[in-house]
Amino acid sequence: MVLTVDVGNTRIKAAVFEEDTVLESFVFEKNELEKKIEKILKKFPNCSDLVIASVGNIEKHSFLIFENLLNIHFLTDNDVFPFTNKYATPKTLGIDRMILAAGATLQFPKKNRLVIDAGTCITYDFIDEFDNYLGGAISPGLRLRYEVLHNYTARLPLLVLEEPESYIGDTTAQAIHSGVVNGFVYEIDGFIDEYRTKFSNFIIILTGGDTDFLAKRLKNTIFANSNFLLESLNQTFQYKIDND
Amino acid sequence: MVLTVDVGNTRIKAAVFEEDTVLESFVFEKNELEKKIEKILKKFPNCSDLVIASVGNIEKHSFLIFENLLNIHFLTDNDVFPFTNKYATPKTLGIDRMILAAGATLQFPKKNRLVIDAGTCITYDFIDEFDNYLGGAISPGLRLRYEVLHNYTARLPLLVLEEPESYIGDTTAQAIHSGVVNGFVYEIDGFIDEYRTKFSNFIIILTGGDTDFLAKRLKNTIFANSNFLLESLNQTFQYKIDND
Repeated sequence: MVLTVDVGNTRIKAAVFEEDTVLESFVFEKNELEKKIEKILKKFPNCSDLVIASVGNIEKHSFLIFENLLNIHFLTDNDVFPFTNKYATPKTLGIDRMILAAGATLQFPKKNRLVIDAGTCITYDFIDEFDNYLGGAISPGLRLRYEVLHNYTARLPLLVLEEPESYIGDTTAQAIHSGVVNGFVYEIDGFIDEYRTKFSNFIIILTGGDTDFLAKRLKNTIFANSNFLLESLNQTFQYKIDND
Repeated sequence: MVLTVDVGNTRIKAAVFEEDTVLESFVFEKNELEKKIEKILKKFPNCSDLVIASVGNIEKHSFLIFENLLNIHFLTDNDVFPFTNKYATPKTLGIDRMILAAGATLQFPKKNRLVIDAGTCITYDFIDEFDNYLGGAISPGLRLRYEVLHNYTARLPLLVLEEPESYIGDTTAQAIHSGVVNGFVYEIDGFIDEYRTKFSNFIIILTGGDTDFLAKRLKNTIFANSNFLLESLNQTFQYKIDND
């Protein structure tokens, strides 16, 4: 049994796997790390491995208190991955994007693959059908767009994510919902269209905290799975064991 | 001769008009306000009127030191405008968006008009061919998207606006440029396409600090004029004189 932990920019996500199956998944704040993992391990005492990927500011030593209970694997770019990394600056490629690319490569072999992770940031990562990771794009996620409108202007309110009533917002709140949500959806569909005109034999994977909200709004057909990063973490770990 | 001043969220823009013609335009920081306006009035001593619109945190009293030199007009939503305001919450409609809508109404009569102002925020404002202002959308501008990626994440650098080399960024910097710039362009074209499918007899006006950078990147045909807000401020003032 494997416990995977994804330390993002904002929150922590975790899941317990029995081989390829998710038994339970969790989302919590960074300051709850120790308490929550303790609780998970009490519930699932058969966990033998803790597999971690972190793009946030939580490092390996934060997990060492658990090293008597199970084996700790802190994945980094020094590990073995199932794709050829063609990024010109591989040392700056976030571990989360590498894990997503690994998961896409292993789960959808011999296809052109675009992985879209809509979290704090939205990341686009492309792996071609010959398993070359070519790079992608990064832009602010939905929540950041709402926050920055409030924090960087004199008079705009801070709103929480909401379905816009129309593309023509007739109140300031509706104008913000339309700008943020519709703008975000146009951006994603724009990127997908750009790839689609250049590549066939193509699959698009959508994941991240905003998966369910976005999946029904995109005009393009996608494979939506909000647990894709945690599943990929589990698969990358299995791949590492088999190939190290 | 009229001096128009637009106090935005980030900077101040100003222009001197002789009737409908811009004689000179200026951009400066908020803390330079007094010094810069003094300098402009020394160069153009025939200015009889100072016309101001402010969405930033600079209020009317900041301009009162000039009241011996010329007439001061601080435009607000209580002034007379050439369109019917159908916004459900007219008191929350920013004066900058009202001025843009007024300028579009006066300069492009009897058309469906979409005004896109790409500044600190990007605003979309729609006035139909019967001069009804219906509302629009607001989302973060180009610079804010770069800033928020750095300020709200642990490991992304702060970059300045740059043309992305490809939609597939193969370094972290190129991934950010692609995400921010291409994402922004897809958003704008997405909004324009949405309006285009619903309205004919249509003109799109693009203005704001990022006008020149964006104009050549959009797939849609637009009327680009980075001085449109200042011109609209001058026209709204003339309209106010004629109709008050």
